[in-house]
Amino acid sequence: MTKKITIAIDAMGGENAPHKTIKGACLFLKKYNNHNDFTLNLFGDKEKIKNELIKENADLSNIKIFHSDSVISDEETPLTAIKNSKNTSMWNSIKSQLDRESDISLSAGNTGVLLVISRMILKMMNDVNKPALAGLWPNKKGMNVVLDLGANIECNEQNLVDFAELGSALYKSLYDNKAFVALLNIGSEEIKGTEILKSAYKKLNNLSNENNFIFNGYIEGNQIMNGDSNVIVTDGFTGNVALKTAEGTAKFITDNLRQSLTQNIFSKISLIFSYFSLKKFKDRLDPRKYNGAIFLGLNGPVVKSHGGTDALGFYHSIELCYKIVKGDLMKQIKSNLSHLKSEQK
Amino acid sequence: MTKKITIAIDAMGGENAPHKTIKGACLFLKKYNNHNDFTLNLFGDKEKIKNELIKENADLSNIKIFHSDSVISDEETPLTAIKNSKNTSMWNSIKSQLDRESDISLSAGNTGVLLVISRMILKMMNDVNKPALAGLWPNKKGMNVVLDLGANIECNEQNLVDFAELGSALYKSLYDNKAFVALLNIGSEEIKGTEILKSAYKKLNNLSNENNFIFNGYIEGNQIMNGDSNVIVTDGFTGNVALKTAEGTAKFITDNLRQSLTQNIFSKISLIFSYFSLKKFKDRLDPRKYNGAIFLGLNGPVVKSHGGTDALGFYHSIELCYKIVKGDLMKQIKSNLSHLKSEQK
Repeated sequence: MTKKITIAIDAMGGENAPHKTIKGACLFLKKYNNHNDFTLNLFGDKEKIKNELIKENADLSNIKIFHSDSVISDEETPLTAIKNSKNTSMWNSIKSQLDRESDISLSAGNTGVLLVISRMILKMMNDVNKPALAGLWPNKKGMNVVLDLGANIECNEQNLVDFAELGSALYKSLYDNKAFVALLNIGSEEIKGTEILKSAYKKLNNLSNENNFIFNGYIEGNQIMNGDSNVIVTDGFTGNVALKTAEGTAKFITDNLRQSLTQNIFSKISLIFSYFSLKKFKDRLDPRKYNGAIFLGLNGPVVKSHGGTDALGFYHSIELCYKIVKGDLMKQIKSNLSHLKSEQK
Repeated sequence: MTKKITIAIDAMGGENAPHKTIKGACLFLKKYNNHNDFTLNLFGDKEKIKNELIKENADLSNIKIFHSDSVISDEETPLTAIKNSKNTSMWNSIKSQLDRESDISLSAGNTGVLLVISRMILKMMNDVNKPALAGLWPNKKGMNVVLDLGANIECNEQNLVDFAELGSALYKSLYDNKAFVALLNIGSEEIKGTEILKSAYKKLNNLSNENNFIFNGYIEGNQIMNGDSNVIVTDGFTGNVALKTAEGTAKFITDNLRQSLTQNIFSKISLIFSYFSLKKFKDRLDPRKYNGAIFLGLNGPVVKSHGGTDALGFYHSIELCYKIVKGDLMKQIKSNLSHLKSEQK
């Protein structure tokens, strides 16, 4: 690859920005210092960004800074933000994609505002009606792409089919591997679920093939993490509830476990012995590793980092951006969608 | 209470029946042998039931056996079962409620068939349009009632309001404590969610009071288990996905934990030290303790045990039936619903 991977970073979005965003960027620079195939375009208050870079003793050779006067506050709503967003660091990041200065944007700012601005600047792809918010979710054998996670609370059958195409393109760009698509439902039999799901099921069954994705049919919530499918398709309401329920359950269990393991002298001793095993356990489930939701269906990829994550979490989002561009997501999407349209003729 | 609590048990439903159902019943008889306030009405093959009771050396003083020739197979669908269900153990259990021989029915048989038969025999309550399937779900401070878990994949605002009334009646009958109702949504702000949710929100806000239930507004999936609300209301599609996603997440985490804790000699030693703490941890999360989903909205309560549970799980379902009748669920429901109807005038 001769062209460099350019990642536009809104340095000012999220809690503790630009401290955590720049620290995350510097972690990336260190980890990827052998790769001379990328540039990080940092958008925000030039002075503050520079100060943070100096603090981190950063190598500046793969960095460009673009000054932006203003920042979108976390309190802004999508409606008010539209008129207040021009020339903010978030706006300018995404604008740089339109101007072909960047391949992808990353922000830890307000999700709703980011979605509205992204859609306004980049526009929807011709063949897609609604953008989807996709997330990474660990499974027994590796990783899932799950979508939609909340961009669309109501979806029709064609939206779900689009999500399958977009999600499997994302999966292939990230993991260079076959995508196995499943529709989230409340039973695995063909007759279960809403009429929308039944129609989507039929369409996906017709589209299923080796080049595009293999359609595994319906799965239930308890099968999301069993690894048989790796692209899980659902509407934004259900996807959001499922994701957050999983987070709440994980927190409940690990809180209970922590309590159990620290409640008496024997279990405290046990902690010493099992420290390294438990550390691996915690590492595997560390939510910072899966930080980053991807907007799909626009004429360019945009990644949303969790606002409250730390530098390590933000680093993982930058790495996600890098992999998405390296795996040529937009080409994968176009190939999937063209296939879809020809099938429908 | 002078009248005895009578529990109709379909002894033939579920895997390993009647062995596990009778063993579960005998566990209940032993645990509750000081309480002279109940009768277990066992429905099924009289000979097989008797043999199992003899094996368990059961005290027969609080037991009645009602012979039923046939059993509904797990492969039966709700449609085919209607014509084949008469005089099965499941049918006769529920029929005994109509005949006032039992206060509640319990079966580990096919869920769809049980719901259809229950509705056919007991009929819907006058003021309720759709029956709901409610389940128990642990939270940080105690227990939640969550409904609907899959009886209705599409719900209107009045269904959700009914579910709040039914669920809080169940909560009060089980735990003799104030019910805090929340609507499951994808954000906590009033403007979030579907139009149906927004209308239900307004109605529940108007109904919220000390005698009935306190309405806590919207919650997101990650708040289901934080204990601030204890009656979680949602449509059957979302509820089913949330419940099963929580189950899948719990399995994923505990499988990972088990792997971590047995992977090397140090962690194996640690297991010895932490055995009792981890046992408590496992006990607290044992799904058999929460076994039993309750059909609400019919003229009589029906409990569905998990088909694959064992004798201990079935025992917990019997105990749940006992508590539901002891807490006078039907009276609680009528009081809640009459309140609801007068508010709506």
